[in-house]
Amino acid sequence: MGKNAIGLGVVGLGRAFTLMLPTFTQDERIRLVAGTDPRESARLMFSKDFNANAYSTIDELCADPAVEVVYIASPHQFHAAHVRIAAAAGKHILVEKPLAIDIEDCTAIVNAIDASSVGLIVGHSHSFNGPVLHARRLLQSGEFGAVHMLNSLNYTDFLYRPRRPEELDTRLGGGVVFSQAAHQIDIIRLLGGGLVQSVRACTGQWDPGRPTESAYSALLTFDNGAFASVTYSGYGHYDSDELLGNIGEMGIEKNAAGYGAARKKLAQISSPAAEATLKAAGNYGGANYQFKPANPARFHQHFGHLVVSASNADLRLTPEGVVIYSDEKRYLLPTPKSRVPRAEVIDEVWNVVRDNAAPTHGAAWARATTEVCLAILKSAETGTDIKMQFQVRPS
Amino acid sequence: MGKNAIGLGVVGLGRAFTLMLPTFTQDERIRLVAGTDPRESARLMFSKDFNANAYSTIDELCADPAVEVVYIASPHQFHAAHVRIAAAAGKHILVEKPLAIDIEDCTAIVNAIDASSVGLIVGHSHSFNGPVLHARRLLQSGEFGAVHMLNSLNYTDFLYRPRRPEELDTRLGGGVVFSQAAHQIDIIRLLGGGLVQSVRACTGQWDPGRPTESAYSALLTFDNGAFASVTYSGYGHYDSDELLGNIGEMGIEKNAAGYGAARKKLAQISSPAAEATLKAAGNYGGANYQFKPANPARFHQHFGHLVVSASNADLRLTPEGVVIYSDEKRYLLPTPKSRVPRAEVIDEVWNVVRDNAAPTHGAAWARATTEVCLAILKSAETGTDIKMQFQVRPS
Repeated sequence: MGKNAIGLGVVGLGRAFTLMLPTFTQDERIRLVAGTDPRESARLMFSKDFNANAYSTIDELCADPAVEVVYIASPHQFHAAHVRIAAAAGKHILVEKPLAIDIEDCTAIVNAIDASSVGLIVGHSHSFNGPVLHARRLLQSGEFGAVHMLNSLNYTDFLYRPRRPEELDTRLGGGVVFSQAAHQIDIIRLLGGGLVQSVRACTGQWDPGRPTESAYSALLTFDNGAFASVTYSGYGHYDSDELLGNIGEMGIEKNAAGYGAARKKLAQISSPAAEATLKAAGNYGGANYQFKPANPARFHQHFGHLVVSASNADLRLTPEGVVIYSDEKRYLLPTPKSRVPRAEVIDEVWNVVRDNAAPTHGAAWARATTEVCLAILKSAETGTDIKMQFQVRPS
Repeated sequence: MGKNAIGLGVVGLGRAFTLMLPTFTQDERIRLVAGTDPRESARLMFSKDFNANAYSTIDELCADPAVEVVYIASPHQFHAAHVRIAAAAGKHILVEKPLAIDIEDCTAIVNAIDASSVGLIVGHSHSFNGPVLHARRLLQSGEFGAVHMLNSLNYTDFLYRPRRPEELDTRLGGGVVFSQAAHQIDIIRLLGGGLVQSVRACTGQWDPGRPTESAYSALLTFDNGAFASVTYSGYGHYDSDELLGNIGEMGIEKNAAGYGAARKKLAQISSPAAEATLKAAGNYGGANYQFKPANPARFHQHFGHLVVSASNADLRLTPEGVVIYSDEKRYLLPTPKSRVPRAEVIDEVWNVVRDNAAPTHGAAWARATTEVCLAILKSAETGTDIKMQFQVRPS
């Protein structure tokens, strides 16, 4: 652990934290100094594992002078309130996506951050993936000319992974639009220039047992004339990782024998309460939890099939890097792998906290992504184009 | 050749005919009895190759009593006039897609056919592909429940294949919307139930040297609540045949060394006139033409990556058949291969001409596909949803 490591206080020791933990423990720029969670088991484990303070409330955690950055990994609907508490306490913030689930909450956060001296980064999301940042740099270089068209699709088993009841209730931030479009749109905005002009979308909801939007297709226009088509399905049938060499979202090779595993496992569960319990059990502090140190990744994380068409080439993002399809040839530009998975998130936190840089994934940026996500729901409901008002360029 | 074979008269011995010729010569249900083309070289070759009548005008061809079916393979903009001549002569009609390039011409054709005793089939198009018809039968069986979402993408080098000047002029039916959306939308309508309700689309035009729409993304809604996202690029960079085992559109394995070949070849051509000459040279009657009998196909023809999401399964179409992704398992249902490529077109011609059946790809059906194609252009121009008026179910 580095001497100058950033003291991190964690709000919510559930799924998101569980997925970030290998990064926090393996990246020497981070020191876990405090945590809070409603579950006593998680607090006790945290305190023991990291020789750190475990608090019952976020207020106590924010009062801890060892905490420099508050990592907010609570359920979506609590993000806005938790951000305000941390900002008021003068702490920098790393908050999981989505920033919030309505524009008013996002704006309250943007204003709170603007009025404070702290920085806010929204992450992890897959727009931190190495190949995404790599493709952005390539496009910014101008070598391939302007971006004209983006196409992204991702078919997963999202809906059948164990869920808490609110994750299946759109009004509470459930469904794939808040959870998965938040990744997909963030990537598309980063590569398309950021300024979405209009959104036309349809959503799908076709498992009556799990009644929330679990699929969508959206057509976005950008102010620079580019357009994007994005499609997602979480219905656990077709798996678009097939198109990516059977490398999963987390950059791990998949086993063909695992087909349908999420549904099979879920079928053995008797009730929503039992499902929530199962989900919690696999997370930090849960009965089935096991720490898995991240192996040096052979592949990058990804978010499905993605092609960016620019004037002089198409760029396809893969778990290995960016494939360039120019006029003359096709070639892979490998994206260098970080020693620690998701180190790109810590890069951005570090730049903001230690170097006073403006975040790429800041509050106004994340509000703009949330605006597009909300427009997907709204367009599907009204059958019309939804015009955007809060779009910003990536910094 | 069968005794009862259908006498076919060909109008236009160019590219479309060249591609259909292996089917006509190898399917014993067809007899080539007459042909017409402005090029004398093509007429002479036709007359000699098939011991058949070669005429200077379509009127003469339609007066030939040996002609039972007129195959109209003239450039798009002549389809309407040629259909009317053939129908007036009491000949059944096989016409290449698109049926016509405006709704008025389509309606004139629909009315002409309705008022006549002849049948009209629009084809070949890729909605005749074996796996497409197979998927349609599977969906009609009800085993997989209702269709909810369709996703199709195809990235090709369409724009850089040799073209006649009008093929690069949208007003004359040029560009990928008339030529390629006509395939993609026909497939999507066939599998989605036919009744498109609205179209929102963007088109791309980013090679100033070839100024016609060469890419698009469209979001379609259907009256049954399903929706479809379709994307096409003809810019010759990314090639989505990668997603289909490097099997090309015609069902032939591709050689990786062929990357960029269309652009390279085109770069050596000095003028639009030279390009048109090159195109003509490779077609029937041209200096570089060579008859290639179709080998028994190892793979089916395809039109890119296509996934249909139904209640109980996703169906993915491949050059081998239909892959089913059910709750429990993934499995390929191989589509039986026809001895003759595109025999499905002849099946439909035969059913209409010999068995008096209603065509699946009839005039009203094709008008509805053209309506969607025109709406892609219109929506891109106006930035609004375009509502459909002429949609029909597949018969």
